[in-house]
Amino acid sequence: MSDAENCSYEDYSSAYKTIFEHLGFNKTDVLTTDIRPVSWSVITNVFVGLYVTSIIDVNEKAQSLTTQVKMITVWYNDLSWWFEDYCGIKTIPVKKSMLWTPDILIKESIKTDFGTKESPYVQINFWGLCISVDILSLTTACKMDLYRFPFDTQICNITLHSAVYTNEELKINPISDNTSLLQDSKDLFQAQGEWELVSINVYEYTSGLLWSSQELLAHQITIKRRPLLYVMNIILPVFVFLVLDVMSFFIDASGADKLSFKVTLLLSVSVLLLILNDTLPSTADKIPLIGIYCSAIFSIIGISILETILVNLLKAKGGEKRAVETTAVERDTNVGDQQSPPDSVGDQHGMQRSLCWIRVARIIDVTFLVLYIITVITFLSVLARIWYQS
Amino acid sequence: MSDAENCSYEDYSSAYKTIFEHLGFNKTDVLTTDIRPVSWSVITNVFVGLYVTSIIDVNEKAQSLTTQVKMITVWYNDLSWWFEDYCGIKTIPVKKSMLWTPDILIKESIKTDFGTKESPYVQINFWGLCISVDILSLTTACKMDLYRFPFDTQICNITLHSAVYTNEELKINPISDNTSLLQDSKDLFQAQGEWELVSINVYEYTSGLLWSSQELLAHQITIKRRPLLYVMNIILPVFVFLVLDVMSFFIDASGADKLSFKVTLLLSVSVLLLILNDTLPSTADKIPLIGIYCSAIFSIIGISILETILVNLLKAKGGEKRAVETTAVERDTNVGDQQSPPDSVGDQHGMQRSLCWIRVARIIDVTFLVLYIITVITFLSVLARIWYQS
Amino acid sequence: MSDAENCSYEDYSSAYKTIFEHLGFNKTDVLTTDIRPVSWSVITNVFVGLYVTSIIDVNEKAQSLTTQVKMITVWYNDLSWWFEDYCGIKTIPVKKSMLWTPDILIKESIKTDFGTKESPYVQINFWGLCISVDILSLTTACKMDLYRFPFDTQICNITLHSAVYTNEELKINPISDNTSLLQDSKDLFQAQGEWELVSINVYEYTSGLLWSSQELLAHQITIKRRPLLYVMNIILPVFVFLVLDVMSFFIDASGADKLSFKVTLLLSVSVLLLILNDTLPSTADKIPLIGIYCSAIFSIIGISILETILVNLLKAKGGEKRAVETTAVERDTNVGDQQSPPDSVGDQHGMQRSLCWIRVARIIDVTFLVLYIITVITFLSVLARIWYQS
Amino acid sequence: MSDAENCSYEDYSSAYKTIFEHLGFNKTDVLTTDIRPVSWSVITNVFVGLYVTSIIDVNEKAQSLTTQVKMITVWYNDLSWWFEDYCGIKTIPVKKSMLWTPDILIKESIKTDFGTKESPYVQINFWGLCISVDILSLTTACKMDLYRFPFDTQICNITLHSAVYTNEELKINPISDNTSLLQDSKDLFQAQGEWELVSINVYEYTSGLLWSSQELLAHQITIKRRPLLYVMNIILPVFVFLVLDVMSFFIDASGADKLSFKVTLLLSVSVLLLILNDTLPSTADKIPLIGIYCSAIFSIIGISILETILVNLLKAKGGEKRAVETTAVERDTNVGDQQSPPDSVGDQHGMQRSLCWIRVARIIDVTFLVLYIITVITFLSVLARIWYQS
Amino acid sequence: MSDAENCSYEDYSSAYKTIFEHLGFNKTDVLTTDIRPVSWSVITNVFVGLYVTSIIDVNEKAQSLTTQVKMITVWYNDLSWWFEDYCGIKTIPVKKSMLWTPDILIKESIKTDFGTKESPYVQINFWGLCISVDILSLTTACKMDLYRFPFDTQICNITLHSAVYTNEELKINPISDNTSLLQDSKDLFQAQGEWELVSINVYEYTSGLLWSSQELLAHQITIKRRPLLYVMNIILPVFVFLVLDVMSFFIDASGADKLSFKVTLLLSVSVLLLILNDTLPSTADKIPLIGIYCSAIFSIIGISILETILVNLLKAKGGEKRAVETTAVERDTNVGDQQSPPDSVGDQHGMQRSLCWIRVARIIDVTFLVLYIITVITFLSVLARIWYQS
Repeated sequence: MSDAENCSYEDYSSAYKTIFEHLGFNKTDVLTTDIRPVSWSVITNVFVGLYVTSIIDVNEKAQSLTTQVKMITVWYNDLSWWFEDYCGIKTIPVKKSMLWTPDILIKESIKTDFGTKESPYVQINFWGLCISVDILSLTTACKMDLYRFPFDTQICNITLHSAVYTNEELKINPISDNTSLLQDSKDLFQAQGEWELVSINVYEYTSGLLWSSQELLAHQITIKRRPLLYVMNIILPVFVFLVLDVMSFFIDASGADKLSFKVTLLLSVSVLLLILNDTLPSTADKIPLIGIYCSAIFSIIGISILETILVNLLKAKGGEKRAVETTAVERDTNVGDQQSPPDSVGDQHGMQRSLCWIRVARIIDVTFLVLYIITVITFLSVLARIWYQS
Repeated sequence: MSDAENCSYEDYSSAYKTIFEHLGFNKTDVLTTDIRPVSWSVITNVFVGLYVTSIIDVNEKAQSLTTQVKMITVWYNDLSWWFEDYCGIKTIPVKKSMLWTPDILIKESIKTDFGTKESPYVQINFWGLCISVDILSLTTACKMDLYRFPFDTQICNITLHSAVYTNEELKINPISDNTSLLQDSKDLFQAQGEWELVSINVYEYTSGLLWSSQELLAHQITIKRRPLLYVMNIILPVFVFLVLDVMSFFIDASGADKLSFKVTLLLSVSVLLLILNDTLPSTADKIPLIGIYCSAIFSIIGISILETILVNLLKAKGGEKRAVETTAVERDTNVGDQQSPPDSVGDQHGMQRSLCWIRVARIIDVTFLVLYIITVITFLSVLARIWYQS
Repeated sequence: MSDAENCSYEDYSSAYKTIFEHLGFNKTDVLTTDIRPVSWSVITNVFVGLYVTSIIDVNEKAQSLTTQVKMITVWYNDLSWWFEDYCGIKTIPVKKSMLWTPDILIKESIKTDFGTKESPYVQINFWGLCISVDILSLTTACKMDLYRFPFDTQICNITLHSAVYTNEELKINPISDNTSLLQDSKDLFQAQGEWELVSINVYEYTSGLLWSSQELLAHQITIKRRPLLYVMNIILPVFVFLVLDVMSFFIDASGADKLSFKVTLLLSVSVLLLILNDTLPSTADKIPLIGIYCSAIFSIIGISILETILVNLLKAKGGEKRAVETTAVERDTNVGDQQSPPDSVGDQHGMQRSLCWIRVARIIDVTFLVLYIITVITFLSVLARIWYQS
Repeated sequence: MSDAENCSYEDYSSAYKTIFEHLGFNKTDVLTTDIRPVSWSVITNVFVGLYVTSIIDVNEKAQSLTTQVKMITVWYNDLSWWFEDYCGIKTIPVKKSMLWTPDILIKESIKTDFGTKESPYVQINFWGLCISVDILSLTTACKMDLYRFPFDTQICNITLHSAVYTNEELKINPISDNTSLLQDSKDLFQAQGEWELVSINVYEYTSGLLWSSQELLAHQITIKRRPLLYVMNIILPVFVFLVLDVMSFFIDASGADKLSFKVTLLLSVSVLLLILNDTLPSTADKIPLIGIYCSAIFSIIGISILETILVNLLKAKGGEKRAVETTAVERDTNVGDQQSPPDSVGDQHGMQRSLCWIRVARIIDVTFLVLYIITVITFLSVLARIWYQS
Repeated sequence: MSDAENCSYEDYSSAYKTIFEHLGFNKTDVLTTDIRPVSWSVITNVFVGLYVTSIIDVNEKAQSLTTQVKMITVWYNDLSWWFEDYCGIKTIPVKKSMLWTPDILIKESIKTDFGTKESPYVQINFWGLCISVDILSLTTACKMDLYRFPFDTQICNITLHSAVYTNEELKINPISDNTSLLQDSKDLFQAQGEWELVSINVYEYTSGLLWSSQELLAHQITIKRRPLLYVMNIILPVFVFLVLDVMSFFIDASGADKLSFKVTLLLSVSVLLLILNDTLPSTADKIPLIGIYCSAIFSIIGISILETILVNLLKAKGGEKRAVETTAVERDTNVGDQQSPPDSVGDQHGMQRSLCWIRVARIIDVTFLVLYIITVITFLSVLARIWYQS
């Protein structure tokens, strides 16, 4: 055999065959494919690089994260050849069924699919290094906290572990450090959807499996929601409706129009609840702030309608009396002018009473408005603080 | 062969091979893989630990529960070696195709997927104990009772049984007791979605299969819904609309505005019915309480609109008469003042009649309001009692 | 070999092996697995028990039914042993790949999945009876008639037949009669969703396949919808809106409020059409009654609005004239009292004309109302009769 | 061997085995299964019958058609036996892996699933005819034209071709003519959903594949939508709203109520746009007529609101002037009667002006109404013509 | 052996067998199927033609593109025969498992399915050219920019690369140039949905894979959305509502009706937000223009309502004073005419004040209207410019 430069095509072809035969791939042996390589160390070291290349879906209702990941698995096998003897061939692809491959599972995985298909090959280096590259479409369970939705940041784990090997047999190591992993992921990142990839943090830990224990390699993926559409579709409209409700206090006292205005606002908020219902799952002890925001504003508008009805009732009571008296007065003035002085007295008296009612209504109205504005401002500022800073 | 400390890497590697050969895995024999191990007892005991690690979906329409479960299966096989003779190797992984594995099915399962993929290996202990770990994504049929929705608790079963082995051949035992199973499940629990895992209760029973009978291991999983979002999105708004409808009785008598106010409330409840329709399936003889709640309030508001129309009609009748008479009077007073006394009498008479109508309207209004409030309070309190306590 | 009581564990184990060897399972022979057992009869009889254990989904748009079924298949094979000779072993499980199994297809099936996975084993009895149990998740095409939705009953078929065997080669028989099949299905029934299982009716028939013909075993499954939610979410609200529209005739004559009231009703019905659109597919020559119900009521409310506009127009015409005349009169009375008598005459004349318009309006109003109520009652009673009794 | 009547069960059984051995199925030969049968002709003729048994889904957004089809494939193989020599056995089932089967693909297919599972067997006749029956669930791409939705008819192709065989090697022929294919499909048809099967038209053509060319067998499936639900849910309600808008011109001149009436109509049409949005995909240069219908009516109602606002503005201008003058007059008449004659003149003048405005308003109103009705009628009649006749 | 014309069927049949034997397909050799053909060059050249035959789905939320593609793969293998020696047989189909096939993956692929099924055959030419044709249903990740939605053009990549072969081993070349690829794709194009295929641009580049590097073949697919339905369903209605809001300034000053008109417009825009929410995902720093369009118009209408309330408040303040004074005057004129001159003075004074308020209201109204119209026009023209031209 000769080196690369002097190799003819025929030499090249037969060089491949000779390597295959040299490495024993022409005969399948159950023992070679089933026993992990332990020639160099008792613990088989597997290096895994998991790059998040796309965030396909975050399902808050199912509490699941669907990502497209590129997974590079590297491990040493006790196979080798000297490339100069084989036409300079440094790497060869070998069918997975012909040698041992690590059985890596994902702890949180609900569903794992290969992007195209599982590659049937593993690339082997002349000094025994095996490389397997897979593009996976991965759905993993992820505990999500929607408290600060839509300004939330979620942390999801993708934890790799062997199905059966204990920590004395197989160890899964990260192929690169956190910084370069994140950088490479961002370089490969293909989507620009609702979620932004903030960081990938890799750490190892050991967990018990019955009487033995296992090495696990966790990838903590931090993603941040881009909130603009939710702000536009829920928060802004509801806020506009709240402002309109506050301003509706200055609508002319003829209560009915005010009422119809306010009840239409309430109806509009109900329509927006349809959007909220499509978006948010029912969760946890801590109700999402956006739910509190919508419900509180809904209730506030409801209460302000009650107040308007009450004030109108008082005004109407006052107005009614006045009306009765006025018509009485009018009749009096028409019929005769003589009895007017004593009537006038009762009139004054009734007038005062009705004015009293109206005054009460006005006091209630103003007091409520002040309280209302204070409540709204306090509520919104507290909410905003929690939303952005907590 | 030597013990672990004196083993070189080469020794280690060949130790593995020797165990494989010792256990006979270098030659596949149809009989070893197809016959269940009966060397230690006539009944093969299989121990299964089923940990619910995530509740992915509860589909009320399909009456199905989708969970992610971790299933640990342990059984004894009549294979053994003395680890001190083999470099201290206590456990080895063996391909599933090389030995008998229990064929456990899930009775309620509609769909079963492996989280990542089925592990090709089983771990074998030096005294013959086999361990297989699988992460499954499981959709099971579950009889749900939505009567108390959204304050409901559902009980779903995941029942394990062998496909063909009778109870004289194979017995499925729980790997741990209820308490530790629940505790371990909660420790592994990854989701914080709509449902809370309350308890896992394991029990065994025997069921007939044609002329033989089978052992089954049922896991009764109790889950509790977190109702807050439904309270916020349906119950609270509908309640606000009801309160507004009650208060609308105090809207000034000019009926039309009242009517438009009330009919807008009805429209708003219709919008909320859209949310209800998205959420609830059509079920059972016992209609869900939330349906009764929404429908009853819808109907109550409808009836109160009818009452308003009736009262307005009566008032209008009275008012009309008064108006006719008043205009008559006004004309009279304008045209001449002499004929007024006899006219006044008819006026008084008509006035009384019209006042009578108005009085009837008022009595109906008040009576209805009282009845209405009593009905609403009774209805709501009964509903609340059933909802929370039954 | 010895009987069960005297068998040690080792005997037991080797008894299994001996049966396997006795039955020839240690060597795979293409002829044994490919040729149907004909030693006992020319026609191979297969007995199938198909139990419907859950109705997962009924998709009216796709006209498909998704069920979970338990299918027990039993057939005779010309294999046997005398159990007393083999430690009392009466049944053994054998891999499906080792013997002939019937190839049963489902004629209507769109999609068939195994609940957990296909069991790799078949149970064989000492006198040659083979049993295979499968839990299937089955989506079948089903011709649905939605005419009486939501009070409908659907009849779906699940027809079993062999893929290639003619009726002279293979016959599929029911394992039990209709009554016990239905009873067993109901006992196993796990769901309590929208559909109630009414009956399962099994019958056999022969159908031609090119020049040969095949035996088919049809399971006619009758299911009944539980209509309560649809009644609550569509029928009741639309009915309430209809009643309100009828009652709106008694709203005080000031037409505008009446109009706004009625048009809000129409809007509310439009909102409910959203629910209807989500539920019903567009089907067939016979339009579903619920569609007729909603559309008719929608149209009726529309027509009643037209009538209100017409009546208001007439009243306005009358009122306008009266108003013109009244202001004229008022001016007259103010300016001078002398010219009043002749004016009064024109006044009377105009008054009569305007009253005439108003009278016409009233007659139209009352006539329409009567016709309207008659139409509504007739329509609803006819609909109700068709709905419940046909 | 003997004929059917004299055959015992044992003979029967061994007859099967002898045929298998006669045909060479006891030994698998790579050459028999991989080479197409060419003993009778150079071109292998395959006869395919494709029956559409159910239309499961038509997805306009994805432009795909999902059908359940029954596909019967028949071809000749150079295998034969004389049935009288083998107990009268005329047909035997053989595993697909044992002989050559045609590799037929569907050109438009996006997804193909077997209804139950792929039958492992092929039926072979004693004179070499092979029959394979499959029930497929097929999703195919289909160019749809939604211009006339919901009165549209779609034509979808299901084209069969071989993956690699050229037209000199394999020819796919229809098993029956168009008429009987349609008739058989209709007999098997199981669904009664939104679509009606109009015709199946089969034709063959040749298409180039790089330097060779292939025979293709196209099935042109014509399906017709049943439009009733769309008429009821979109077309009818929108039409009712249009009629109401036309009639709203006759609402009493007090513009505000008219406006609120009309804007509610616009809101109702918006709600119906929600239904339209759920149904129609955004397509092509020719916008669907139903989109034109809804948008045009939406715009027409919008324009008529603008007109109402304009007319009201003019009326208000007139009315305002009149009001100013009237109050002036009233004050005059109250304060003193002497200055009235000159005032009266200005009054008359102002009156005329204001009446002039009102007259202009009325002319605009009537003109617009006439134009409006003409436009609407023209638009609707043109639309109806295109919809039904084109 | 003889040429095609003199070949009998038997010769033909045996010619096939002889070619198979000549090429060595009668015995499977692990080395022939696993080693890439290197007889003609060190780098194996693979030619791939990827034709986009249908755009099935573009999911903006998941940022994924689903297409149906036809992929033709061509490569040279060192197998050959002289067709004249074998009955003129120029091409033969061979099972994929019998020879080496390139392992091409798609970099962006989330999911890849075969349209019908993977063809088991490869076509081989007499001079060693292998052709494989596959119809794939492909879901790929695609970075989408929705800034100009619905007038957007998306560029998606489908990049082909080998799983393990480096750029020194395997090179993927396009089978044809860009123009003919686009033309062929358009000829095959089966759908006419929301998206139009604009261009396909093919380019090659090299990317690093750990220490080696790979050849990649990228297909840049440019697709253009057909925006008409979105224009009709969102942009047009929202625009109509904006125009109506502008025109509502000319509604008669009686503020309540104006308010109810305007708030109904706001409610209608809320309903359209439901459609927007269904369509748009929450993305990126650059918020989609359509979101800005809807939100801005929503806010503008909200602000104009606030302005209306303010103006009405001012008017009411003026009107109230006037009313108080007028009633005072009326009483005065009724009670006595002597004190009127001094009262008249105060009256005039109050009148002026109230008129002052009304004047302020009018100035604000007009100023706001002018600003409002300018803002709207500027906003819309800027938006339109960005939308169409950027």
